[in-house]
Amino acid sequence: MNCGIAVFPTKEVQDFANSYRKRFDPHYSLINPHLTIRDKEDWTDEQLAAAVNHLEIVAASFSPFTLHFNRFTSLYPSTNTIIIGLEDRKSLDQLHDAVCSESLCIEDSMKHLYHPYLAIGQQMSNDELHDVLASLSKIPVNYTSEIDRIHLLYQTENGAWTTYQTFKFKG
Amino acid sequence: MNCGIAVFPTKEVQDFANSYRKRFDPHYSLINPHLTIRDKEDWTDEQLAAAVNHLEIVAASFSPFTLHFNRFTSLYPSTNTIIIGLEDRKSLDQLHDAVCSESLCIEDSMKHLYHPYLAIGQQMSNDELHDVLASLSKIPVNYTSEIDRIHLLYQTENGAWTTYQTFKFKG
Repeated sequence: MNCGIAVFPTKEVQDFANSYRKRFDPHYSLINPHLTIRDKEDWTDEQLAAAVNHLEIVAASFSPFTLHFNRFTSLYPSTNTIIIGLEDRKSLDQLHDAVCSESLCIEDSMKHLYHPYLAIGQQMSNDELHDVLASLSKIPVNYTSEIDRIHLLYQTENGAWTTYQTFKFKG
Repeated sequence: MNCGIAVFPTKEVQDFANSYRKRFDPHYSLINPHLTIRDKEDWTDEQLAAAVNHLEIVAASFSPFTLHFNRFTSLYPSTNTIIIGLEDRKSLDQLHDAVCSESLCIEDSMKHLYHPYLAIGQQMSNDELHDVLASLSKIPVNYTSEIDRIHLLYQTENGAWTTYQTFKFKG
């Protein structure tokens, strides 16, 4: 079963992101706006159970933190993805490092540089990306989101995601 | 914020239901297949916090149970909804009664007979409902789902649902 780990910003930020995702993100109907903490991976039931145990331990010692979204930007040229950028990603990097350890350690062959982001446009052509970004970059962005829990999710065959369990930070 | 409470059957049942919902359910892209425990209601942050406390208490004493889905049927003539029927709804009725108590007690004016179901077709015309059901009722259905948690969800402006918190049964 494909499983993944993410955090969700407040409803206000999700609504703001969705107003753009509706037009620019083919994943719009599969999951609400989120920031991926660990990419999807096919897990057995045993791996899922081990992940639950691990996430309970991580969440027990992690403290809630605030994200500040402050601009539209992109991941170009790595991928043609438009995102809502963060002022400071340190807490998400720390969360990623804590989550992707022990039983959820990522194999060296699968490792890539972690980059936390809230996508609002994906799979765009170069021209579309640059045109849309030129327009969006003039729009002021100033949202904060308190992040106080992690979501462990699994994917159904249609590509949509269901939350398996939430883990509230108690640190 | 619109909040609601539901349980999700296993991925296998969700995949089976989605193969029909894709054609017959306008809510297909807004939420994965589920059984509503408490209908959506607009809550303040204080009501949400009270609901979390109440659901923690309910889940602490509720025991996991098994649902057996055994046929296609409908809610006609109440509504033109096709559902996957349950062999025995007693556990869901008990869960509904436990959830919809204390701070989540439903006002008399809003009360209606609770009927737990897994919808696969909604908002159909009479003719469509009867045609589709005549065809589906010949298909054997035999799925079980272990239900061991409740999902508290909120709705974003686009109508989609995000899980706020899961509550695992510990009874």
